[in-house]
Amino acid sequence: MSKEITSRQADYSQWYNDLVIKGGLADYSAVRGCMVIKPYGFALWEKMQAQLDTMFKDTGHENAYFPLFVPKSLFEAEEKNAEGFAKECAVVTHYRLKTDPENKHKLIVDPEAKLEEELIVRPTSEAIIWSTYKNWIQSYRDLPLLINQWANVVRWEMRTRLFLRTSEFLWQEGHTAHATSEEAIAEAEQMLNVYADFAEKYMAVPVIKGVKTESERFAGAIDTYCIEALMQDGKALQAGTSHFLGQNFAKAFDVKFSDKNNKLDYVWATSWGVSTRLVGALVMAHSDDDGLILPPKIAPLQVVIVPIYKGTEKKDLLDDKCKDFAQQFKTAGIRVKFDNNDNSRPGWKFAEYELKGVPVRIAIGLRDLDNNVVEIVRRDTKEKTSIGMNGLVEYVQDLLIDIQLSIYNKALAYHESHITKADSLEEFEKLLDEKGGFILAHWDGTPETEEAIKEKTKATIRCIPLNNPQEDGKCILTGKASKQRVLFARAY
Amino acid sequence: MSKEITSRQADYSQWYNDLVIKGGLADYSAVRGCMVIKPYGFALWEKMQAQLDTMFKDTGHENAYFPLFVPKSLFEAEEKNAEGFAKECAVVTHYRLKTDPENKHKLIVDPEAKLEEELIVRPTSEAIIWSTYKNWIQSYRDLPLLINQWANVVRWEMRTRLFLRTSEFLWQEGHTAHATSEEAIAEAEQMLNVYADFAEKYMAVPVIKGVKTESERFAGAIDTYCIEALMQDGKALQAGTSHFLGQNFAKAFDVKFSDKNNKLDYVWATSWGVSTRLVGALVMAHSDDDGLILPPKIAPLQVVIVPIYKGTEKKDLLDDKCKDFAQQFKTAGIRVKFDNNDNSRPGWKFAEYELKGVPVRIAIGLRDLDNNVVEIVRRDTKEKTSIGMNGLVEYVQDLLIDIQLSIYNKALAYHESHITKADSLEEFEKLLDEKGGFILAHWDGTPETEEAIKEKTKATIRCIPLNNPQEDGKCILTGKASKQRVLFARAY
Repeated sequence: MSKEITSRQADYSQWYNDLVIKGGLADYSAVRGCMVIKPYGFALWEKMQAQLDTMFKDTGHENAYFPLFVPKSLFEAEEKNAEGFAKECAVVTHYRLKTDPENKHKLIVDPEAKLEEELIVRPTSEAIIWSTYKNWIQSYRDLPLLINQWANVVRWEMRTRLFLRTSEFLWQEGHTAHATSEEAIAEAEQMLNVYADFAEKYMAVPVIKGVKTESERFAGAIDTYCIEALMQDGKALQAGTSHFLGQNFAKAFDVKFSDKNNKLDYVWATSWGVSTRLVGALVMAHSDDDGLILPPKIAPLQVVIVPIYKGTEKKDLLDDKCKDFAQQFKTAGIRVKFDNNDNSRPGWKFAEYELKGVPVRIAIGLRDLDNNVVEIVRRDTKEKTSIGMNGLVEYVQDLLIDIQLSIYNKALAYHESHITKADSLEEFEKLLDEKGGFILAHWDGTPETEEAIKEKTKATIRCIPLNNPQEDGKCILTGKASKQRVLFARAY
Repeated sequence: MSKEITSRQADYSQWYNDLVIKGGLADYSAVRGCMVIKPYGFALWEKMQAQLDTMFKDTGHENAYFPLFVPKSLFEAEEKNAEGFAKECAVVTHYRLKTDPENKHKLIVDPEAKLEEELIVRPTSEAIIWSTYKNWIQSYRDLPLLINQWANVVRWEMRTRLFLRTSEFLWQEGHTAHATSEEAIAEAEQMLNVYADFAEKYMAVPVIKGVKTESERFAGAIDTYCIEALMQDGKALQAGTSHFLGQNFAKAFDVKFSDKNNKLDYVWATSWGVSTRLVGALVMAHSDDDGLILPPKIAPLQVVIVPIYKGTEKKDLLDDKCKDFAQQFKTAGIRVKFDNNDNSRPGWKFAEYELKGVPVRIAIGLRDLDNNVVEIVRRDTKEKTSIGMNGLVEYVQDLLIDIQLSIYNKALAYHESHITKADSLEEFEKLLDEKGGFILAHWDGTPETEEAIKEKTKATIRCIPLNNPQEDGKCILTGKASKQRVLFARAY
């Protein structure tokens, strides 16, 4: 084996770090809490970006770009939002360095270059965007305004984990403006559905759609919709959120429009985002102890071709055949690599591509040339097959579809078998400790009880599922009456 | 007319701002020196990005992402680079805000959340990247390392102009590591050629390739290659740079590799970048007093179809025909919009799409339906033609190619007629004031003379053109001997 990976059994958290670092997805950086996204990890993010971007554009959104910095006076305008993010803000206070008078090889912050007003490095962009929308929106004809931004944001984190929680991360943030509350709610729900579709159809990660409780809501939102996914260790991960912001930001930034009857009203808003956190979710949802398992639809590389030979006998012939197949795959729109690097042996390459989660590996040896066959191994099940060279491309096309589906179905089976009902606190705690996963339980609806359960069990209410069945019951903590079960889990 | 545009004659600078703002490319923001890139401007940048990204990948580069922040101690490690950027650095000094004890609706920077080490918002990423490369490079097998990053950077600017000079801007920065000086120089030259190809074939902007003088070199570089373009007011604009960094950063960050003989040596480096400044260059290179003129290859929208009708008679028939054409264009890979908005008149739409620089406008009226013809207007020359509906798509495909070429040829004719030789300072100053453009003149090769000419005339040495003809002459300022002419201009 080329690189050793800790097993999930031995240490799930170390297993995850090993995959991310040894799989070439990301690396720690010299900046506290910030990571470097390495080329392979970035290629994965680019695939996810490209698909999401298409889905956003297909639903009528356009991309734009707003400043990285938010002047403090704008940042504090929507008070709940400001209060929610104040503790994690990186603040720019100066705009110049100068040579240290005591050491000419060093620089110091120039005290004379202090900003009159501090600039906040955006932790989210509602403030800067709504201060701009004020100039763009006058009448109902300017609505809806459907804008998305791909950007970096900074939220100062004390405890960080590669992809899952970093001080700087990449994301997209949609910010829309509407004439009515109904339209804004429909938009927030539409984008939640886009996220769920993306997670399930492209990332092969099943999710539960729901609404957050008040205490888990985005700061400044009326309602936060979310998709929640389940990782292999039974912990939940919030994979995307979509917020109905009501008129909060319109009021804070005085954004009004005149309707068809020339009546002035505040605009209704939504915002929604997913981030590089999704890469972490993808890694944890499917991978095994030998490395990453990537769904073909977003795998940077779908097929790798490895030639098997000794010495140089017939090597040219083998190379030509491999190149020919690589070209055929490319023509068919398959992302392929022919690895003809002489410096590493086939066994090392096999382990490396397993680690990197390339969905299909094709090995061709000299004897295969004579027999007109190739050896195919699919990464997800490691199943090995010998396939005739004729019709290889069609075979692999079908195989990629099958792998995508298999990965999803496996995750779905795990997901479905890990939604359990609990009717007492004892049962609830036992489930958390022994089985993990989502737990549906009754809750009395108060933030105090939610907090108490969290304190006691480390489980949080992930969401109130959409279209949640109504059912009379009693809160597992207080025994008070409850009309529905809500979804609990320990979470990332 | 819908929106008034200042003419170039009246005020070139205001004309540019009008195009950018009224054309929907960008807007001023609430943050000093930072702009908002509006959807249409961002769509243009996306087209440019996509093409450049393809060209980078075709030359073997991969994308990655490095942190926004650079710890001060890393930033100052390469002293020339640090010194060059120190005066324009935004500095993060604190990581938390708190409620103002004197006003609970306001926030203040929490003095207890002062960073031990200040973080510089990257003005360029050599420092953070080379501190990372140290861990990635051990042997010649790790080289070349060919990485690009799409990112935002911040350089604090006192005088800003939309796209051309903003405190925050978007760009790409390539950072490569090589085993030999020759390879690194070849890489720097290759990327200069990629930039020149992109400028000429996609942006339709002719450029001169050259090398910067010492005083215009990138801080920390051994050589800075550049492409220089000419705007319609006769001023030059640096459109892209590619730097040979020698071993400066490898030494500053102690990045060594062992060669095939196990000998240790410092790695050789390049970096290269283009930015959203290119959008400004594109606007200024081609547009006229009625609005933008965009080359079809990077125009967000290539064709707009406007229906002409009165009342509702036969409107459905007209709509169907337009939709049918729009679909045919889409199928042919042409970016098309059918503008069936009832709220604005055809005349308003014509002006709007002229302003936005859509290369081809097609109008179809009720009579055209009977006659089986459409009216086509090309944006660049405003030439109007009546064309039969049969074979319309093929006609437009050819027309788009023709427009791309025509725009380039027009710019090229201007460019070529604005490279003039001057043999005395008097001639030089006269040319600058009366004709503008590039001026080829002899220079004695000293930074002092370069500075004196700049002081006196506001013209700078844009570059020493590649493959510059050698010719004996005398410096226009000092009369000292010179072996070649260099390229001067007043510049953005």
